[in-house]
Amino acid sequence: MNDRFLRACRREPVDRTPVWIMRQAGRYLPEYRAVRAGIPFLTLCKTPEKAAEVTLQPIDILGVDAAILFSDILIPLEPMGVGVRFDEGGPVLAPPELTLERMQQLAVPDPVETVPFVLDTIRILRRELAGRVPLIGFAGAPFTLASYVVEKGGSKDFLKLKRLLFERPEVAHTLLGKLADTVGLYLRAQIEAGAQAVQIFDTWAGILSPRDYDEFAGPYVTRVIEALPRPGVPVIHYVNGGAGLLERMKAAGGDVIGIDWKTSLADARRRLGASVAVQGNLDPVALFLPREKLEERVAEILGQGASGPGHIFNLGHGIYPDTSPDAAKFLVECVHRLSAAGGAPRQQQQQQQ
Amino acid sequence: MNDRFLRACRREPVDRTPVWIMRQAGRYLPEYRAVRAGIPFLTLCKTPEKAAEVTLQPIDILGVDAAILFSDILIPLEPMGVGVRFDEGGPVLAPPELTLERMQQLAVPDPVETVPFVLDTIRILRRELAGRVPLIGFAGAPFTLASYVVEKGGSKDFLKLKRLLFERPEVAHTLLGKLADTVGLYLRAQIEAGAQAVQIFDTWAGILSPRDYDEFAGPYVTRVIEALPRPGVPVIHYVNGGAGLLERMKAAGGDVIGIDWKTSLADARRRLGASVAVQGNLDPVALFLPREKLEERVAEILGQGASGPGHIFNLGHGIYPDTSPDAAKFLVECVHRLSAAGGAPRQQQQQQQ
Repeated sequence: MNDRFLRACRREPVDRTPVWIMRQAGRYLPEYRAVRAGIPFLTLCKTPEKAAEVTLQPIDILGVDAAILFSDILIPLEPMGVGVRFDEGGPVLAPPELTLERMQQLAVPDPVETVPFVLDTIRILRRELAGRVPLIGFAGAPFTLASYVVEKGGSKDFLKLKRLLFERPEVAHTLLGKLADTVGLYLRAQIEAGAQAVQIFDTWAGILSPRDYDEFAGPYVTRVIEALPRPGVPVIHYVNGGAGLLERMKAAGGDVIGIDWKTSLADARRRLGASVAVQGNLDPVALFLPREKLEERVAEILGQGASGPGHIFNLGHGIYPDTSPDAAKFLVECVHRLSAAGGAPRQQQQQQQ
Repeated sequence: MNDRFLRACRREPVDRTPVWIMRQAGRYLPEYRAVRAGIPFLTLCKTPEKAAEVTLQPIDILGVDAAILFSDILIPLEPMGVGVRFDEGGPVLAPPELTLERMQQLAVPDPVETVPFVLDTIRILRRELAGRVPLIGFAGAPFTLASYVVEKGGSKDFLKLKRLLFERPEVAHTLLGKLADTVGLYLRAQIEAGAQAVQIFDTWAGILSPRDYDEFAGPYVTRVIEALPRPGVPVIHYVNGGAGLLERMKAAGGDVIGIDWKTSLADARRRLGASVAVQGNLDPVALFLPREKLEERVAEILGQGASGPGHIFNLGHGIYPDTSPDAAKFLVECVHRLSAAGGAPRQQQQQQQ
């Protein structure tokens, strides 16, 4: 079994730096688009055989070191009582009125009863992967899910959300608590169904000031992590735009801190110390570079990651839909080739620490 | 004359922490909306008497410690040969085709001939301010202006811009060089007309990885600053989302580093050291807080700012149009009151360093 991803999560020595790609099962792959043709996005998420099929595509095509469940972070919101649909412009949510009473009435649904298709997908995947690579489950963090609920979809400046946090914090905290309990149960169920690691996407927490992160985002990630079985599977904690929050993300929890491309990985490692692994952090637009320049950037990030044990190579954000699959394939090959070559000095460095 | 803003820029002792507000002349003020009624935005920018009138409004209404020229960062683009208009969704640009040849043909216009209205506005303002508070001029940084040119307006992910940087860097560098030369002449003319400080807005540089910042943003800010008269007026260098770039912003230049709310001011001061002043960094949404909570945040930021000399209080980004003018007024009063009270221990702290 290729377990270098799990070994890196635990900061153990690896033969090569493991690599996977956020949104690796996605529109940039013609094979994905072929499955998607004629199936609405949410139907794909809810059809285990199809969801498993697209999850597996990048394993075969790119040779990445981990599979990540194909799903959407908004999936657990529907059984809570928040309508979710997707149109051309992205997700459109129909939440209850944002009052204290309505938030108190939100359900904390049992995932086995309400989202069995996710758990079935995981079971199919574990069987079909047959140990080839580990399977990552995932969920949105409470703060990030709250942003979709309050904004009723995506947002540019999250003004509605932030006004709720500031003007009616008790409503916000009630919503965040319900989301944390829901996500805790949801990830626990994914792990019980077979997920071998989980990533918590706090994609939008980077819009917060450090003090607001400490009130509205960090503690709810902690609450989710505390709901998971211990000792358990590795938890990856990812924030986009978290350059000002790295120490706080670490304090909130996670075995691996996932970072975007807007901090240098060297700085991130220095700030985070040796007790957590790191995941990242190539700018996804770098996949449009000519190969020799892309390779330079990969080498640079590998060099920064190799300053300590526990580096999982990834993009700093999801892969763009118009990326060439060949570029993604080259990236994976490049990470493996360059990190294998640099293996010996890396282990020496580790021993020095 | 109230010179505490200029003193803080130079890291000299002040009686109170100076405060101004990004977009302080703007739509949140009914007095501004009254002037704007019936005048298109660009016409207002190009009519010195009117532009001066709205510049002065927040001085009288809020009691801020500096005036900032009312204008738009896109103003110098028109005489370069880039069409600019504003519609409901924001700016719409009509740049030449993005080829090397076209970029080489871009004009580097003389501001005295092409944007005399800006210089006239500054002259009117210096006369009308009569030394009450200093006047800040400003310009967009080359990278940020390039983002509007390439995206033909605002953008969510700046994918066109970043693809240009990565796929045709020689085209990007030619454009950035023309913009740097234009902005250098433009700010120099503002200073010669009477601007007593200038702010360079590199609003979008925070989308770049540190290595790309070092190639595409930082050096062009340096080139602008090198074009200004020396010894000259204080330069404020502002980036939104620059938490991963603070040391690089300082290296690029500026007497004052302007930061958004996504880094704590304490961290920023530690990272930047004592040789530059800092400006910031209240989350603009905090102006929707109840007063006692707003006051808490102001006190916290003042405490962090007082760890060394040279703090100018500001928001971390522009004030929102639906902010209450009373909240803005309270903010200014609060900064002055709390920092006057803390004056003595602050000066002691400074002496200890």
